[in-house]
Amino acid sequence: MPRYKLTVEYDGFPYVGWQWQDNGRAVQQAMEEAVERFAGERVRLQCAGRTDTGVHALGQVAHLDLADAWRTDTVRDAINAHLKLAGDRVAVVTAEQVGAGFDARHSALKRHYLYRILNRRAPPALGHGRLWHVPRRLDAGAMQAAAQLVLGQHDFTTFRAAECQASSPVRTLDVLDVARSGDEITVRASARSFLHHQVRSLVGSLEQVGCGRWPPAGMRAALDARDRRRCGPLAPAHGLYFVSVDYPPATRESAAK
Amino acid sequence: MPRYKLTVEYDGFPYVGWQWQDNGRAVQQAMEEAVERFAGERVRLQCAGRTDTGVHALGQVAHLDLADAWRTDTVRDAINAHLKLAGDRVAVVTAEQVGAGFDARHSALKRHYLYRILNRRAPPALGHGRLWHVPRRLDAGAMQAAAQLVLGQHDFTTFRAAECQASSPVRTLDVLDVARSGDEITVRASARSFLHHQVRSLVGSLEQVGCGRWPPAGMRAALDARDRRRCGPLAPAHGLYFVSVDYPPATRESAAK
Repeated sequence: MPRYKLTVEYDGFPYVGWQWQDNGRAVQQAMEEAVERFAGERVRLQCAGRTDTGVHALGQVAHLDLADAWRTDTVRDAINAHLKLAGDRVAVVTAEQVGAGFDARHSALKRHYLYRILNRRAPPALGHGRLWHVPRRLDAGAMQAAAQLVLGQHDFTTFRAAECQASSPVRTLDVLDVARSGDEITVRASARSFLHHQVRSLVGSLEQVGCGRWPPAGMRAALDARDRRRCGPLAPAHGLYFVSVDYPPATRESAAK
Repeated sequence: MPRYKLTVEYDGFPYVGWQWQDNGRAVQQAMEEAVERFAGERVRLQCAGRTDTGVHALGQVAHLDLADAWRTDTVRDAINAHLKLAGDRVAVVTAEQVGAGFDARHSALKRHYLYRILNRRAPPALGHGRLWHVPRRLDAGAMQAAAQLVLGQHDFTTFRAAECQASSPVRTLDVLDVARSGDEITVRASARSFLHHQVRSLVGSLEQVGCGRWPPAGMRAALDARDRRRCGPLAPAHGLYFVSVDYPPATRESAAK
């Protein structure tokens, strides 16, 4: 059975997140229904990172196996046609054939997230549901300084959801970059893997630094406390974007087969 | 009566355009209702450029007179509060007090528009309603070459709507820049003023060049024909953004009064 790697963009707003839930439509559901309508097969998609309700994706990655060998252009276009018919805000940006050893979740070397903050008095009109509106002025320089204090391998208990199911709270944070461009502040985060709510917890805490409630060193103190109660308020889901996933080059080689 | 200059952002999707219409809600209507609820006055807003149904604005400019002298922060925040209550996708980004000589439309020295094209096979998921989806590959270099052939002062009869009410079809196009960034092609257009549908007519014609149906010189031939029937298909409204307006420095001086 040929295996396909799909890179998927979605608007998180109408969905309960990636994974099937009882309380609303999931991105996974939209995708699996579209695949079934196109290929006539019930499949289960495995994704690189299960996003929460309202979180967007520019480059979520998922894999699936199909009984037949389809042209990758056909896989992409046919799934997109059925997603459109269903009124879904989900699109397959690329489809590639990969080797049986490829696993969207387990083969991932690094995951990249983006968080967008609109930092002005006026609420977003065009960016409604696409970024976190913070009316009080934030000091992006202080936020960037604070962010650098939590890079590397740490116990991130402070910055993970109480309900996080990961067996260990230790993760290695490779990038946490804060930058301002006009009224927008972006936070870019990269790591091999993240804990549940880790990026939103980090951003919510950085906002406390930005508005002057915490000194930059407070970010490190919160980390060192290993205490969820020391985390800043969780940043809202609709500012978060799952941007892309890095895989080993072998994936590309097997894709060329 | 103090005069206020408002810079306004809006999502064009839910509106019939800037100006009051019988067939749906207008941005002007949303704004005037919000002003009335805040200041208790029925006012008429004058804008720099009346946008069509579905066209977005990042920096539309409008002016209005109020009986009382309010703090500009109050004007901005109070109008935004009422816009939000009404569920409108419109926001006042800045409010400034200006002299009685300022007129959002007649004082304008230059208007800047942006047109966004998503040039990939997959339809937009996050950018739905925010850009024109063109699945066939476009040659942005050829589009840019063609665009340079219509700069300057010309009779733009080919590139204006049949129903355009301007007395003269002559305009001076200062900027028409086409650039690709990944899957997105942007077209930036600047002029003192534009004819009705001029930017969308230019972009629709540039798309004919981009897909190879017209040679770049075809853009100039269409211009020289001064014949509306020689225009390419009109580019859709939802890819167009009214970005900003330039005014003489005197406006800022009177604002400081």
